[in-house]
Amino acid sequence: MPALYDNSVITEVPGPLSKAACKKLDKFFDSRAVHFVVDYDKSDGTYIVDIDGNRYLDVYSQIASIPVGYNNAALIAAAQSPDMISALVNRPALGNFPSSRWHDILQDGLLKVAPEGLNNVFTAQSGSEANELAYKAAFMLYRRKERDGGDWTSEEVSSCINNAKPGSPELAIMSFANSFHGRGFGSLSTTRSKAVHKLDIPSFNWPQAPFPALKYPLDKYTTENAAEEQRCLKEVERLITSWHCPVAGLVTEPIQSEGGDNHASPAFFQGLRDITKKHGIVMIVDEVQTGFGATGKFWGHAHWNLTSPPDIVTFSKKAQTAGYFFGDRMLVPDKAYRQFNTWIGDPARVIMSKAVINEILDKDLVKQTARVGDALYAELDGLAQKYPDLVMNLRGKGQGTYFAFDTKDAASLVYTMKTLGVNIGTCGSQTVRLRPMLIFDESHIPILISTLDKALASI
Amino acid sequence: MPALYDNSVITEVPGPLSKAACKKLDKFFDSRAVHFVVDYDKSDGTYIVDIDGNRYLDVYSQIASIPVGYNNAALIAAAQSPDMISALVNRPALGNFPSSRWHDILQDGLLKVAPEGLNNVFTAQSGSEANELAYKAAFMLYRRKERDGGDWTSEEVSSCINNAKPGSPELAIMSFANSFHGRGFGSLSTTRSKAVHKLDIPSFNWPQAPFPALKYPLDKYTTENAAEEQRCLKEVERLITSWHCPVAGLVTEPIQSEGGDNHASPAFFQGLRDITKKHGIVMIVDEVQTGFGATGKFWGHAHWNLTSPPDIVTFSKKAQTAGYFFGDRMLVPDKAYRQFNTWIGDPARVIMSKAVINEILDKDLVKQTARVGDALYAELDGLAQKYPDLVMNLRGKGQGTYFAFDTKDAASLVYTMKTLGVNIGTCGSQTVRLRPMLIFDESHIPILISTLDKALASI
Repeated sequence: MPALYDNSVITEVPGPLSKAACKKLDKFFDSRAVHFVVDYDKSDGTYIVDIDGNRYLDVYSQIASIPVGYNNAALIAAAQSPDMISALVNRPALGNFPSSRWHDILQDGLLKVAPEGLNNVFTAQSGSEANELAYKAAFMLYRRKERDGGDWTSEEVSSCINNAKPGSPELAIMSFANSFHGRGFGSLSTTRSKAVHKLDIPSFNWPQAPFPALKYPLDKYTTENAAEEQRCLKEVERLITSWHCPVAGLVTEPIQSEGGDNHASPAFFQGLRDITKKHGIVMIVDEVQTGFGATGKFWGHAHWNLTSPPDIVTFSKKAQTAGYFFGDRMLVPDKAYRQFNTWIGDPARVIMSKAVINEILDKDLVKQTARVGDALYAELDGLAQKYPDLVMNLRGKGQGTYFAFDTKDAASLVYTMKTLGVNIGTCGSQTVRLRPMLIFDESHIPILISTLDKALASI
Repeated sequence: MPALYDNSVITEVPGPLSKAACKKLDKFFDSRAVHFVVDYDKSDGTYIVDIDGNRYLDVYSQIASIPVGYNNAALIAAAQSPDMISALVNRPALGNFPSSRWHDILQDGLLKVAPEGLNNVFTAQSGSEANELAYKAAFMLYRRKERDGGDWTSEEVSSCINNAKPGSPELAIMSFANSFHGRGFGSLSTTRSKAVHKLDIPSFNWPQAPFPALKYPLDKYTTENAAEEQRCLKEVERLITSWHCPVAGLVTEPIQSEGGDNHASPAFFQGLRDITKKHGIVMIVDEVQTGFGATGKFWGHAHWNLTSPPDIVTFSKKAQTAGYFFGDRMLVPDKAYRQFNTWIGDPARVIMSKAVINEILDKDLVKQTARVGDALYAELDGLAQKYPDLVMNLRGKGQGTYFAFDTKDAASLVYTMKTLGVNIGTCGSQTVRLRPMLIFDESHIPILISTLDKALASI
């Protein structure tokens, strides 16, 4: 079991070796965003070690993407397996020439954790790509329904090459204020969090709905928050019915993560399900950051108890691969090669995902995350009482270890934490977010809390 | 050395086992585009073996993406290396927490083959993503020059969140008729080859220039072809100066591959370089299919002897990873995190790329491809003489093994070839394309040519 001294910082952060390595790297690879350069051989479990020998408790986890710890033994075994060697060396065009093993890799991996009701999968390489593939599926379904069994017209076929109507129709994906869905031209058009993501990049004229701004603590503002959610739902429906072009899909995160860890209630999401059903809109749940157990359930949307499942759920990050799940086979386009590309994901990463999934299931890590989250919340709430001006709007109760709070100077607090040996992250404009791995357990809580206490006291 | 009997087909294609495997897979993974299901353990070098025991000479190479053969020993060694295990198990957010090894992996791999004058790299996961990142770099550079050192305005910052001007400007990327640059919303807006790629997907109103339609044989139509190229260049410039919004970038393939293997002369591409320089437009060369040696030079654009290098060169496929090279550091955005995402590529695939690069250099495979291409061209030209109505507009002379020809029924010819034990591909509307690996050598020529002769004779 890790002890308190398992994290230790012996240089400034970043240290001199990290700085020198960055400078060298920057000659051909932009390294302005590097926090520190990592010695992954020395990193293990929830601890990350930089090349200056500093050892941090990692509660940021590669932007929320490491699921079961550095140098995890089960993952090492998967990395050394014959399946993996073959997938790396003989990279297939999965849509044309899949391996004889591909079926079982999916069945014994991703399909084991498919969200209820969504038993089909399309694999991809990033969350951004997964979302764009989902949007394309929504657009093709929308037009397919409009055609009502009719074939493509010659006018559609010729006009789409010119990016013109009717072949390239005006159709929209609705997203929410403060959302983050990726940085491709389509996904970025649905991202609404920060100018640094969007500035100077042409985008589609798609609608942006307000996301509920809940007040904390939730039990104190029940009425106000319910009214706020109703206001947003009404605006969602108003935008759908008044937008200049049809809205084919709606995309939402279960918890808006990059945009500041903004939560809404199950009732709000049930409302979205009702509205999307009513208007024939594909409901896409972007679980790139929330999926794979961090909220104390395998999928964030499992907290909602929806009357019918979302149409599409996208994943990436902790999955260590990416893609989307869906149920309705109408979401498979009418002809082959419409949803297609050369690689269609990477079987090497899907094999890693299988190992992650089996590690999560074998060790019951989702249940552990729910349990540890409850214990951690109590401690964080204690700090919120102790530092009411520095730990504000603590959120994530009952959502595993998916915690965040607002503070005065988030970047500065996160930096101080690093100098004290704990790696955490920011999001939104004034929010600190915790993104522990699923192996974060009760033994790590005192390290995190005592360090946070020290950092807050120093402000 | 392989003998003629190294390829053999013992069942119908696809065979009963492939069909059964497809049906099983299709329950959760669309398998309508599957040619056959592969036993990669039994595949080796340029031969691919399906699960029915059929062994094909592979002259399609996973849609032109296998560089140095199945189960290549050097690649197996890379797949088993400690660097690889760490990259697979400890997947980093490369922009924030790169490994201490990342610098050397790039320097001893991708940077070794950087196109002349382009000594910076940004890594990605697919050709589509690489192109979109290049477009974003072009847009950010365009606006940066317009700002002329000025900071972002508050109006820009707030409007971009709403996908509105001035923060989300109307700017365009020009591409060519029949081009293929990928299937994301931005890359798809520059793809102009087939309706199956584009239909029903919203797109940007960006200009499409005509690509030269050359007549073959080239030496017979020198004057006509030069005039055709001049016509296209004039139209490029006319579109740039008359388009409803500024054109920030121009993207071209050295050989339009998916769109039918359409070639143009070095003079045409020099003309594009001149026009883009004159109008301050970022020239992006999409080497996703042409890069990594297939044309008898490492990069397709190296055939052009440009007076100054292109601004950006994108790569994927045979590189086994993806990304873009560039020279001008002004293409690095003014602030960190603008060109950014969680993973920024995959070091596991960059390690495989390093192994591919070193295998190509060690075995001098680009030179071999040029040599083998000359020998193969002579044989193909013989078939063109023998079957003038079935092998038309043979193209690719002097471009390594990057050959294609038009025929009456390309799909049917490709299918017949498969039943005779040779896997080749189609492109455009009536074109057969050969996409041998770089290890395709003189010993494979008789197998390919005798099979093609037999298939053509059977029509």
